[in-house]
Amino acid sequence: MTVKQLTLPELTDSCVRLGIPGVGLWREPVRAYGVEAAAKLVRDAGLTVTSLCRGGFFTAIDPAERARALADNRTAIDEAAALGTDTLILVAGGLPAGSRDLPAARERVADALSVLAPYAGERGVRLAIEPLHPMYAADRCVVSTLTQALDLAERFPAVQVGVVVDTYHIWWDEAAPAAVARAGAAGRIHAFQLADWTTPLPAGVLTGRGQLGDGVIDMREWKGRVEAAGYGGAIEVELFNEGLWARDGEEVLGEVLARYEEFAG
Amino acid sequence: MTVKQLTLPELTDSCVRLGIPGVGLWREPVRAYGVEAAAKLVRDAGLTVTSLCRGGFFTAIDPAERARALADNRTAIDEAAALGTDTLILVAGGLPAGSRDLPAARERVADALSVLAPYAGERGVRLAIEPLHPMYAADRCVVSTLTQALDLAERFPAVQVGVVVDTYHIWWDEAAPAAVARAGAAGRIHAFQLADWTTPLPAGVLTGRGQLGDGVIDMREWKGRVEAAGYGGAIEVELFNEGLWARDGEEVLGEVLARYEEFAG
Repeated sequence: MTVKQLTLPELTDSCVRLGIPGVGLWREPVRAYGVEAAAKLVRDAGLTVTSLCRGGFFTAIDPAERARALADNRTAIDEAAALGTDTLILVAGGLPAGSRDLPAARERVADALSVLAPYAGERGVRLAIEPLHPMYAADRCVVSTLTQALDLAERFPAVQVGVVVDTYHIWWDEAAPAAVARAGAAGRIHAFQLADWTTPLPAGVLTGRGQLGDGVIDMREWKGRVEAAGYGGAIEVELFNEGLWARDGEEVLGEVLARYEEFAG
Repeated sequence: MTVKQLTLPELTDSCVRLGIPGVGLWREPVRAYGVEAAAKLVRDAGLTVTSLCRGGFFTAIDPAERARALADNRTAIDEAAALGTDTLILVAGGLPAGSRDLPAARERVADALSVLAPYAGERGVRLAIEPLHPMYAADRCVVSTLTQALDLAERFPAVQVGVVVDTYHIWWDEAAPAAVARAGAAGRIHAFQLADWTTPLPAGVLTGRGQLGDGVIDMREWKGRVEAAGYGGAIEVELFNEGLWARDGEEVLGEVLARYEEFAG
């Protein structure tokens, strides 16, 4: 998504040229290209699929909507398995229209996980709950802190359900470092993502994620925390940024690499 | 600030006509009108000044800037005393330019409070730390949760330092209800403010506060929590909203009253 201007073949070519060993994919471009074809493309390029983004959106009250969400998530788990990644990233979903009940919405997320976790486990896919910044609590994700995500994950085996540590969403939270340590000790850090926090935020607050080093987050410190917690997996950089999308994709990827070295390496 | 289109005399007239018994004031219009004149205007109208907004902005590193901030806050305390309100609302301030150290910035807030709290106490003014939503942590307020604000306040006597409970900033936080109870038990809820959360957020995320009932926050539930915690003070409605500012101010005030009755009364 950081370089969504690139087609999948352009993306894999650029990764190979730049020496990037793995890539996190999003479902929409994968489905448009064909799941099996995408799997072959990435495999033939010698790349790892670090994660698939995203399942989730579990907060509907309407039974038919809930059934559709569960079915779609089973499909996402199958897609992750077909791509050869062990990690499906989940975004919980926001409040249903007209609802003001956050605790009930959060409990519906847990209910959905109890259905999906065994299904994922049987296919070698780990569900990774991504807490999103509290500014998304109403319309996108009722799981707002790493502590909350971890509390949810801990209802299930670690090989089935864990969390995503994304600097953009948790950097402000003084309780997050302890949650990182707790998640790592339990083997529940299933993905680690970097993005920087820059202001002012754009309207809708979706596309303001900063290039590494442009904002206020100490990337090296968060990487150190995650590593100290025992994480040795991929480090993904996930930027939603209109400015980066408007540029040449491979140039952006190269810049991400350079910034990573400068601010987190 | 909800009806900043009104002059101070228009505001007091509208409050009297609508039966609103008190009003929270901001420093800028008060200073423009004259502090003593404003105090007389409100007093002659039979209104209470529920709070003065705002002091704070304590996070500068530069010694001269820090000294200026402390001096300005002493002035704000004097203004609050002159207006006859017992509550000065504080916004901590964001990260200084170039800094990525949130814990250090938060500690500088505590340092400033230790200087100002006795000064305020001697003048019968309580400092009320307002945690702002985490989306403001970088550029406006490094105190992001009610728990954090309360932890800071508890370093000082309750008659000197407490917290602001503002639904807009804390509604998403599952730890906030317990913090409300803890703050109330300690006599540290020094202000209670209502605003609703609506999406999408506008660019800059400053002027998107929703009219009561337009968003996802259960006002009645939060009012119940605050009252159950022993709070019996004023209930302020603080909306920063371009749409409301563009309308007739007294009409907006009347609508606020009606919405308050419908959603919180």
